[in-house]
Amino acid sequence: MMSDTRQILALNRFDNARMDGLDDGLRARLARREATFGAASVLFYERPLELVRGHGAYLYDAAANQYLDMYNNVPSVGHCHPHVVSAIAAQAARLNIHTRYLTRPVEEYAVRLLGHFPAPLTNLAMTCTGSESNDLALRIATAVTGRRGFIVTRAAYHGNTAAVAAISPSSFSGTAVPPHVRLIAAPQADGDVAGRFTAGLRAAIAGLEEAGIGFAALVVDSIFSSDGIFADPAGFLAPALEAVREAGGLFIADEVQPGFGRTGGGLWGFARHGIIPDIVTMGKPMGNGFPMGGVVTRPEFLARFCEETGYFNTFGGNPVAAAAGDAVLDVIEEEGLIANAASTGGLLKQGLEALRAEFPAIGGIRGAGLFIGLDFISRDSGAPDPRMASHVINALKDKFILIGAAGLYGHTLKIRPPLCFAPAHAARFLESLREVLRAS
Amino acid sequence: MMSDTRQILALNRFDNARMDGLDDGLRARLARREATFGAASVLFYERPLELVRGHGAYLYDAAANQYLDMYNNVPSVGHCHPHVVSAIAAQAARLNIHTRYLTRPVEEYAVRLLGHFPAPLTNLAMTCTGSESNDLALRIATAVTGRRGFIVTRAAYHGNTAAVAAISPSSFSGTAVPPHVRLIAAPQADGDVAGRFTAGLRAAIAGLEEAGIGFAALVVDSIFSSDGIFADPAGFLAPALEAVREAGGLFIADEVQPGFGRTGGGLWGFARHGIIPDIVTMGKPMGNGFPMGGVVTRPEFLARFCEETGYFNTFGGNPVAAAAGDAVLDVIEEEGLIANAASTGGLLKQGLEALRAEFPAIGGIRGAGLFIGLDFISRDSGAPDPRMASHVINALKDKFILIGAAGLYGHTLKIRPPLCFAPAHAARFLESLREVLRAS
Repeated sequence: MMSDTRQILALNRFDNARMDGLDDGLRARLARREATFGAASVLFYERPLELVRGHGAYLYDAAANQYLDMYNNVPSVGHCHPHVVSAIAAQAARLNIHTRYLTRPVEEYAVRLLGHFPAPLTNLAMTCTGSESNDLALRIATAVTGRRGFIVTRAAYHGNTAAVAAISPSSFSGTAVPPHVRLIAAPQADGDVAGRFTAGLRAAIAGLEEAGIGFAALVVDSIFSSDGIFADPAGFLAPALEAVREAGGLFIADEVQPGFGRTGGGLWGFARHGIIPDIVTMGKPMGNGFPMGGVVTRPEFLARFCEETGYFNTFGGNPVAAAAGDAVLDVIEEEGLIANAASTGGLLKQGLEALRAEFPAIGGIRGAGLFIGLDFISRDSGAPDPRMASHVINALKDKFILIGAAGLYGHTLKIRPPLCFAPAHAARFLESLREVLRAS
Repeated sequence: MMSDTRQILALNRFDNARMDGLDDGLRARLARREATFGAASVLFYERPLELVRGHGAYLYDAAANQYLDMYNNVPSVGHCHPHVVSAIAAQAARLNIHTRYLTRPVEEYAVRLLGHFPAPLTNLAMTCTGSESNDLALRIATAVTGRRGFIVTRAAYHGNTAAVAAISPSSFSGTAVPPHVRLIAAPQADGDVAGRFTAGLRAAIAGLEEAGIGFAALVVDSIFSSDGIFADPAGFLAPALEAVREAGGLFIADEVQPGFGRTGGGLWGFARHGIIPDIVTMGKPMGNGFPMGGVVTRPEFLARFCEETGYFNTFGGNPVAAAAGDAVLDVIEEEGLIANAASTGGLLKQGLEALRAEFPAIGGIRGAGLFIGLDFISRDSGAPDPRMASHVINALKDKFILIGAAGLYGHTLKIRPPLCFAPAHAARFLESLREVLRAS
């Protein structure tokens, strides 16, 4: 069975076999792309989009068309934000070196970033990507617990290294779930969310223990991005943390997607649940596109891991990354982006609720801040309707709005614009979505 | 037993327990570093060095002292090279996005880079680090061969992900060699280098097959950096490739250290041996410090891998990385850095040979281009002398020259300056090394 993320991509990816109707220039570009990137080349849209420029919440194609970006969460404070760009340019011209020498930018950034974490999360390891962050988190959890079993949600995505791909069921394709990995259902949208999620977790822990594998850690994206975005009720992860602690495992909060203000209630998605994880991993928006990631944990956990092997990352913690990361924190503060995520995200959600009253194709609407999932369902059966999601994505592109999908069935519109998204952008999106749904 | 790289680091790292003699300012900096980076903080030198600026082959400390850099191979075309810096700054201000849209800089860079590889190596996957590149290479090899066993040299280092750390014995510390990994001796410095290396390889392949694990790939740094730098005789890897092919395995050339011109005989270390590997991995110098890496392989291998899982790397192949990589290739060509690596590396080696005639502490001298290993040995027994290497490293720092060590015993001075290293720099280094050895 083709799994979800691949299914979603299949619904919203360019198919090399369907070149009809594309002009010669684009066909030549696509042929070159195929010849160089081969089977790993995946492009969005039935007719792939060439981008040449980005600014704020906008992206521009080769014909100078302006697109409103509601998909890309890496350029989180806005495409090519001048403050971040100039910080990168200035530091790249001054010094770019690894962490085996002292450099002030990295050390000051570490102090600043760690200031945004609750005790006892006081140590930082810098990496280059969310994948490297999660890979390191798994190694720390194994060293600390002496056990190998990991639990993740059914459509989770945590990255692309061998170890992390093994806990990313949304990348599985026909391949079996590895024995040391147990999948649990994503949180439900309503009812006793905490109770059902925790019951699934406890059963999975018991399964790992019975199999003699042992339970090392629960790894969750704290807003369940790939599973379809589950944010409410705030606090539903607290009993899960308790269950993890009782079993002597670790709680790894993957903040690669929810982190850095997106949920509108502080910098981290886990804060929404009133919990303090054992390990927090970061990536995507950390440097607004400069490749950087990080792992924050308790000093004794990092020390236990380092007894066995140590950790050094050549590019991780270079001063240019630190300058980018520092500038991102500046912009989040100076432009009030967390408050904006809450208020503009709130407007957006209200507008979507109003559309739901109008269109029976809209099912659940969930989210926090500027991270909202909207389910498309069959008018008759209420069943997930991934083809409608795919249709809406392509139709919105024709209206110069970029957006994507998520969820176990690929029927969830993933609404995830840069955090500089303004009320006027929200109004434009809502109007365009209304037009698309009216014409459907 | 503490393994080599850790032993080398232990010899040349700051020890937190030894704060005596350090001024208050530095002590405060070190305490802050310990409080934030914890057990993963490793600093070079008995008295750690704070760096504030880099330019060409020079680094500058906080007191404006100028150091000649003979250690750092990431800023390979020179620290903060203005052409690379301005390429990064310009592209970061224009567009920084992932590869699911078409972007011209990435596609043009891919064509240019692949133009430097022999057929049938025509596909490129972009990553962010050498570790990610090697991690992906292992996954491709497993998918292609259907087998799990990897063979590496005894003091190899290939990176820091879980999968790659398992094939990096120089990071092992007391931990056992995993069952799917077999270690073979690094090449010898003389005699029948190819014959002995290939015999070790064949025995390891047989061992993996007998154990029912099967042989997936041989992974070698094509200049054996961590093992102590073994370059000659050119061609000694050709019989190894034959043995790999006979056994139905893949040959993975790790070009993270030798790649991009360092060996002075073309862009790649494997070219020195007249071989065409199955997979080539890149990292460190690829973007002169901008975090980027890549994997080049045959289209059918990438396709086989992608059938199972696909590969997407959020930051990998972003246009800023492509701009940095493109600028690095510009500089290598425009400044004739490969020819310089050959000629200045040749001068350096001649000068070191002359020193060997003067100082019995100098044993073997090996290398290619601007990557040279020099062994320190006991005058009496000829045994490896890692303490002498450590002494020389710290004494050269007092003469404002930065350098490091390598090898199974940590007794090999690793001479690896930026490729813009000039004859005058070589003369200064040789004179300083002579003074240090005279005073020893």
